[in-house]
Amino acid sequence: MATADNAYTLDTVREALVRQEDTIVFALIERAKFPFNSQTYDQKYLEIPGFCGSLIEFVVKDTEIVQAKAGRYENPEENAFFPENLLSSLVPSYPFTKILHPGAASININKSIWKIYFQDLLPLFVSSGDDGNYAQTAASDLSLLQAISKRVHYGKFVAEVKFRESPQDYEPLIHAKDKEGLMKLLTFKSVEEMVKKRVEKKATLFGQEISLNSSDDNNGKQKFDPSVASKLYEKWVIPLTKEVQVEYLLQRLD
Amino acid sequence: MATADNAYTLDTVREALVRQEDTIVFALIERAKFPFNSQTYDQKYLEIPGFCGSLIEFVVKDTEIVQAKAGRYENPEENAFFPENLLSSLVPSYPFTKILHPGAASININKSIWKIYFQDLLPLFVSSGDDGNYAQTAASDLSLLQAISKRVHYGKFVAEVKFRESPQDYEPLIHAKDKEGLMKLLTFKSVEEMVKKRVEKKATLFGQEISLNSSDDNNGKQKFDPSVASKLYEKWVIPLTKEVQVEYLLQRLD
Repeated sequence: MATADNAYTLDTVREALVRQEDTIVFALIERAKFPFNSQTYDQKYLEIPGFCGSLIEFVVKDTEIVQAKAGRYENPEENAFFPENLLSSLVPSYPFTKILHPGAASININKSIWKIYFQDLLPLFVSSGDDGNYAQTAASDLSLLQAISKRVHYGKFVAEVKFRESPQDYEPLIHAKDKEGLMKLLTFKSVEEMVKKRVEKKATLFGQEISLNSSDDNNGKQKFDPSVASKLYEKWVIPLTKEVQVEYLLQRLD
Repeated sequence: MATADNAYTLDTVREALVRQEDTIVFALIERAKFPFNSQTYDQKYLEIPGFCGSLIEFVVKDTEIVQAKAGRYENPEENAFFPENLLSSLVPSYPFTKILHPGAASININKSIWKIYFQDLLPLFVSSGDDGNYAQTAASDLSLLQAISKRVHYGKFVAEVKFRESPQDYEPLIHAKDKEGLMKLLTFKSVEEMVKKRVEKKATLFGQEISLNSSDDNNGKQKFDPSVASKLYEKWVIPLTKEVQVEYLLQRLD
């Protein structure tokens, strides 16, 4: 978030990832406020002249267009779900720190995130039912999708700072296009376990019903099943972030 | 959120207000991630052909247009900041529970919320500085504004269920257009104190830096000053909600 050359270090990148956990947990809890609201995702529900798709696609595409005009995607930390639709930024350009290899711009795995989100993640934690709040549901899907996407694509920065710390470890594997070797070098099981536990703890704390009688809090009802947050990290966020890191490193010496 | 006639009762309304506290606290913490980013609010910063105003106005107006098309404002719980700009909903109509008196639709105090938000609230809790993330800042302003607006305008439902519980207490005051008397009847100092305390407790718990060593949590750094949340409720949310209640009740017998 800083403009100085040392804006991205192992420490600042780690701090950003930890802070992003809170954003993801908040967004999970906020989406869980609404029931599934299947009309939001039904291709046949919407009849908008000149638009073909579901309400979620309509809301995400059109909101991304507004945010692109406002300059969101000028920051290399951001990746759109529908980059093919976007108009250029209409705001004066800002000197975002450019530490990534130029190839980074072509790495966007939001199509996979989108598929996983609707097929696998949503059904895990959203109650069945319909309350008619489809626009609000789509807006909260978008916030959660953006938070997950930002976290996963932050892998580019993770990979860059790791590479700069010890290029000698990465270069031979990159030259050999050794995906498996890179994946191994990037994997720290104990760190991954810690991240999953911390995310679950955050979801437990942030998802509890808070009452003024402090002894009630931990026995109280939960707004959200905290194991969903650690499962999201275990099954998707951590593996996809590593996928981004490997993709990034493979282009790093081009 | 339900469609049945008993969707709004004193209990369900109270429950909704408590749940909205979490949404507001999450949104406060999320806005605090970004520095002030004054360009977002500078009338002279943006040069968009055919648009006159600041980036925040651009993002809020255009995002509200997208959400209006997606049906957001069909739900009587929602009130737009720029209702004069909105297009009609493009989604099939949903049978939202209609318990409010028709006059409710004309009550919208978002202009006051907007002014307070930028003049008084933001400077209270946002750090100075500029990180270039103006579009993201505007998007998180919008989420927080919408959460506050929903809470304040929920006063219409609060007033309606209170009126239905004991019309005999309200009718003489309404006939006499006795604003002060109505305000007195709606005010429960002890409840307001409890709400402020609970909101501050939520902001303390949700705004702490969570580490895996549980003894650290309460001594740890805060992402957010929790007293800001109770001040927001004390100075603005609670009084404005009562203002909405009084306005609503004054029209209730028309």
